[in-house]
Amino acid sequence: MTTNILLMEGPDAKGLIYHVTKVLYNNNCNIINQDEYVSPNGQFFMRTVFESEVGFGVEIVIEDLRKRVPNEEIKFRVNPKKKKDIIIFCTKEHHCLSDLLTRYHFGELDANILAVVSNYDVLEPYVRKFDIPFHHVSHVGLSREDHELELLKLVERYSPEILVLAKYMRILTPYFVAKYSNKIVNIHHSFLPAFIGANPYKQAFDRGVKIIGATAHFVNNNLDEGPIIAQDVKKVNHRFTSKDMSREGKDVEKMVLTKALKLVFNDRVFINGNKTIIL
Amino acid sequence: MTTNILLMEGPDAKGLIYHVTKVLYNNNCNIINQDEYVSPNGQFFMRTVFESEVGFGVEIVIEDLRKRVPNEEIKFRVNPKKKKDIIIFCTKEHHCLSDLLTRYHFGELDANILAVVSNYDVLEPYVRKFDIPFHHVSHVGLSREDHELELLKLVERYSPEILVLAKYMRILTPYFVAKYSNKIVNIHHSFLPAFIGANPYKQAFDRGVKIIGATAHFVNNNLDEGPIIAQDVKKVNHRFTSKDMSREGKDVEKMVLTKALKLVFNDRVFINGNKTIIL
Amino acid sequence: MTTNILLMEGPDAKGLIYHVTKVLYNNNCNIINQDEYVSPNGQFFMRTVFESEVGFGVEIVIEDLRKRVPNEEIKFRVNPKKKKDIIIFCTKEHHCLSDLLTRYHFGELDANILAVVSNYDVLEPYVRKFDIPFHHVSHVGLSREDHELELLKLVERYSPEILVLAKYMRILTPYFVAKYSNKIVNIHHSFLPAFIGANPYKQAFDRGVKIIGATAHFVNNNLDEGPIIAQDVKKVNHRFTSKDMSREGKDVEKMVLTKALKLVFNDRVFINGNKTIIL
Amino acid sequence: MTTNILLMEGPDAKGLIYHVTKVLYNNNCNIINQDEYVSPNGQFFMRTVFESEVGFGVEIVIEDLRKRVPNEEIKFRVNPKKKKDIIIFCTKEHHCLSDLLTRYHFGELDANILAVVSNYDVLEPYVRKFDIPFHHVSHVGLSREDHELELLKLVERYSPEILVLAKYMRILTPYFVAKYSNKIVNIHHSFLPAFIGANPYKQAFDRGVKIIGATAHFVNNNLDEGPIIAQDVKKVNHRFTSKDMSREGKDVEKMVLTKALKLVFNDRVFINGNKTIIL
Repeated sequence: MTTNILLMEGPDAKGLIYHVTKVLYNNNCNIINQDEYVSPNGQFFMRTVFESEVGFGVEIVIEDLRKRVPNEEIKFRVNPKKKKDIIIFCTKEHHCLSDLLTRYHFGELDANILAVVSNYDVLEPYVRKFDIPFHHVSHVGLSREDHELELLKLVERYSPEILVLAKYMRILTPYFVAKYSNKIVNIHHSFLPAFIGANPYKQAFDRGVKIIGATAHFVNNNLDEGPIIAQDVKKVNHRFTSKDMSREGKDVEKMVLTKALKLVFNDRVFINGNKTIIL
Repeated sequence: MTTNILLMEGPDAKGLIYHVTKVLYNNNCNIINQDEYVSPNGQFFMRTVFESEVGFGVEIVIEDLRKRVPNEEIKFRVNPKKKKDIIIFCTKEHHCLSDLLTRYHFGELDANILAVVSNYDVLEPYVRKFDIPFHHVSHVGLSREDHELELLKLVERYSPEILVLAKYMRILTPYFVAKYSNKIVNIHHSFLPAFIGANPYKQAFDRGVKIIGATAHFVNNNLDEGPIIAQDVKKVNHRFTSKDMSREGKDVEKMVLTKALKLVFNDRVFINGNKTIIL
Repeated sequence: MTTNILLMEGPDAKGLIYHVTKVLYNNNCNIINQDEYVSPNGQFFMRTVFESEVGFGVEIVIEDLRKRVPNEEIKFRVNPKKKKDIIIFCTKEHHCLSDLLTRYHFGELDANILAVVSNYDVLEPYVRKFDIPFHHVSHVGLSREDHELELLKLVERYSPEILVLAKYMRILTPYFVAKYSNKIVNIHHSFLPAFIGANPYKQAFDRGVKIIGATAHFVNNNLDEGPIIAQDVKKVNHRFTSKDMSREGKDVEKMVLTKALKLVFNDRVFINGNKTIIL
Repeated sequence: MTTNILLMEGPDAKGLIYHVTKVLYNNNCNIINQDEYVSPNGQFFMRTVFESEVGFGVEIVIEDLRKRVPNEEIKFRVNPKKKKDIIIFCTKEHHCLSDLLTRYHFGELDANILAVVSNYDVLEPYVRKFDIPFHHVSHVGLSREDHELELLKLVERYSPEILVLAKYMRILTPYFVAKYSNKIVNIHHSFLPAFIGANPYKQAFDRGVKIIGATAHFVNNNLDEGPIIAQDVKKVNHRFTSKDMSREGKDVEKMVLTKALKLVFNDRVFINGNKTIIL
C-alpha cells in the first residue's frame, strides 16, 4: 500500500468531511488518520492520511472530489508521504544547524538537506564532515539586494521545497520572501511577540523575566511577525546573565526549530491569515 | 440548534468514518468536531460532536447508523451535551474537594455535585458553606464490607453518573468497584507507576527523585493500576522534605484531577483494556 | 529557639558574608540557611535565616553588625518569621481570590487576610462565607482620585504590610502606588512583556501564539512594567478561542500569584532597580 | 585572579560557615558564590567558589581550615575550576553521544573527551569525524568479566575523572563499579523508579502513561538505583506507539544527561547516601 496525504482548505461548507470520506471509500482507499478544523473566520482545514493500492492514481481522488465540491475556492491536493528537499541558511552559530545535520546524518530527519548556505565560512569545516555542499556567500561589499540575488541564484539551482533559517542573522527583503512565500521557516530566540528584533536575550535580561523562550515561524515581510508554528520556554532566574540566557536558550531554540520542521515536513501546518493551524 | 456527542467504539472496519458522516449528512446534521483513533490492537474509537435542529430525534441517527454498521460489536450512543451528575468522596484533605467546590460554586464545573461523602467530618463545615449535602459515613467499628454497604446505599439514592475520589484514603472492594465500573475516578499522589501504595511522597523523598507527580485514573480492582486519564509533574530538589513534597504536590494533584474530570465530563475518554483513549 | 530572618542589601564590599557569620557566631545564633547574590551592577543581597534562643534580643545582632559594617548604604534588618498582614483587592473574577481564601481558610497561607476590597459587590457573598470583612468601594460616579482616596482611607485603617491585586481591573495612580511602594503585588494575565495592557488573551489569540502565560509583579508607575516576581505558561493551540485562553489561563494566573506571594510573605524577594532578586 | 571551588562535607557543627568565611577573609580571598545545605540526617554540605590572587597556594586555605575544624570526619578539598577528563561509553544509539561530541567540538562542554568506547563499531565513523579516539571492545565470545577486564585496561590508560554511560546497554559488575565509585554517570530512559530494567518505553506504552521521562544517575551496584542527579519528562498520549515514545524520549534523554553532566563537571553534586545534593 502507498501512503498519501490529502490536504484541503477553503470556505467551510456542509458535507465536506462526508464528500472526502465518500470519495476515498468509493476508490477503495483506507483512511489512516483524519483531522479537521473550522476557524472562527469560517475557513475549513482538513488533513487526511490514507492508504491506496500501489499503482493507484491519486489524481482520480482529486477529480472525484472536485465533482462533488465544485467550489474552486476550496483547494485540495494530495502529497505522497516523502521527505522534503530543504536548504539550510545559517550565519556563525552552530546549534540549530548541528542538530539538523546530526539527525540527517543518522537518517532521522524527514527531509533531504540539499545544501547549507552561510554569509560566513566558520561553519564550513563542520558541514564538510557530513558530505553536504556548503556555500559561503559573503555579504561583505555587497548591497543587500546584490547579496540576495546571489543567494537566490544559488537556491534556485537546488529547487528546494523549504528554506530553513537556522539562526541566519540577516533580514530577507520582501522580494526574496515573496519568491518563497510560506516556505521559509525561521527560529527567533525569544518568546514572540516579546522581544522582537535584535538581542532578545539582552532585552530579556534587562526586563528581568523569569522565563525565556524561542519561536519558530514562517517568514513574511514584517520582521518576526509571521505565523507562529511552535514555541517553547525555559525558566531562568536573577542569576542568569544575558550570556547565560543566550547559552541556555540555544537548547530551546534547536528543540523548537526541530519540532516546527517536523510538523512542516509532514504537511501538518496550514496557514490561516497570520496564524498556523496544525493538524 | 442542539449539540450532541456521538460516541462509537468497536473492532475497526472499512468505511466507519464514511458511514457516520453519511448518516449525519443525510439527516441534515452538522459536524462540529470529529476525532477518531484506531489502536494497535485493532479497536476503532470515534467521538463526533454534531449539531441538529431543535426537536430532531437523535435516535434516527442511531437507527440509520445501525443499518449501515450491523456488527453489534461496534457500539454507538449519542449523548446530549450536558453536565454530569457526580458524588465526591473525600477523607480529611481539602485541596481537591475545595478546588471542585469552588469551580462548581462559580458555575465553572461541567458537573452537578449531588453530594459529598466522607469517612470523617472535618470537611463538613467547609462543604456546608456551599449548600451541598455532606454525608459523614464513619468506618469506625465497621467491617470494610459493612462500611461500603452504607456508602452504596447512600450513593444509589443519588444515581450519580460519576464518582470522584478526591483524596478518599480508603481502598474500595471489588464488589463496590464492579457496581460503578469505569465510573470511578481517583487521584493518586504519585507519578504512577512509580510509588504505588501508601505514602508516595515519603517514598519519593527516600528515593531522592528530582520530580514528583500525580495521576488521575479510573479505579479497577488492582490498586493504583486502573487506566490513566491524566498526569502531571513538578520539579523538586534535595531541599524538599517529604512534607514539602506533600504540600507542593497538592497543587499538582488538584490540577490533574480537575483536568481528568473535564475530559470525563465531556465524554472524551474511552477505555481500551487498561489504557485510555482521549479524543 | 526563635527563627529570624536577617535581610541585608547594599553596595558589595569585601567580607560581608564573613561579618554576618561572625556576628551570629559570637551571639550564639545558629544559621539555618543563607543565600546571597551580587548583581552585575555591584549590589549585594543576602538573606540569612537563623535561630536564636527565646528571649534573645536580635537588636544586638543589628548593633554588632553595624559596628563591623559602618557603611550606611548597606542596609539590614531582622524580621521575625511570622505571617504578613494583607489586604486583597479584586473586581469581579474570583479565581485568584478564591484560591487565596481557600488556602487561608485551611491555615495554609503565610498571611493574615485583613479584608477584601472590591469596586463591585459580586464576590461579596463568597467572601462572607469565610468571615472576612468585605468592602464594596464602587468607583461609579467618582473621579479616579476620589475613588482612590476612599480606598486609601479604608486600607490605612488596617495597616497592611502587603496589598494583593487579585485581578483588580483598575489602574492605580502614582499617588496611591507611592504610598505602598514595593508593597503592591499584581497578577497580570500575560507572559510580560508580551501583551501589555488590556485584553491580553485577545491579543494572544490574534497573534496566534502557541503558549500563554501569567506574570506576578510589583506595581510601579508604569503599567505592567514593575519588577517581575514569578511567571508561568501553558501550551495552547489553534483550537483555543480567546475565551478558552482566558478560562485556561486563570489556573496559571492563580498559581503564579500564589507562588509569588509565598516568596514575598517569606521575605525572599529583594528589588534591584526594575528586577527582583529571589533568595 | 584564579577561581577555585572549595567543597566541604561532614557532620554538621556550629560555626562551619563562619570558619570558612573567616579563613577565606584572612587569606584575602573573595567569595564569589557560596551555597550550603544540612540534610535531615545531620550532614553538612557546602560549595564555595572563591577568587585568589594568581600564585596564591590554596593549600594554606586547607591548612587554616583544618586548624579551625579539626574533626577529620569533616572533609574539604579545593578544586581549581577546570575541565574534567572523561571517557564516554556507548553501544549503538547515537543521540546522547552525538550531543556531547557536538558540544565538545564547538568548545561548549566543560570536559575533555579522552576517548569513546563501545561494544559495537557502528558509531565509529561518526566519532572519527571529530578526531576523538574510538575503541571497539566487542563483548562477543567473552565472559562479562573478561570483557570488563579489557574495558578496565583501556580506561585505566586514560585516567579519566568521570565515565559517562551514554546509552551503554550493558550492565557493569560490582567489581567495575567499585573501581569508579561515584564517578560513573548513566542515563536511563525512564522516569525512575518507574520502569526499572529493560525496555522502559515498552513498559510505559503497556501501562498507558501520559508522561515519559529520563533519569541521569550515578551507577551503584543495584541496577537503576544509584543516586539521581537529574530527571525530566515529556507528555505523550495514546497515539504514541512504544517506538514513538522511544524516538521522542531520546531528546529528553540527551538533555537530561547533558544537564546532569554539567552539574557534575562543575563540582556541584554531592552524594548523601542514595541521594544527591546539588549546590
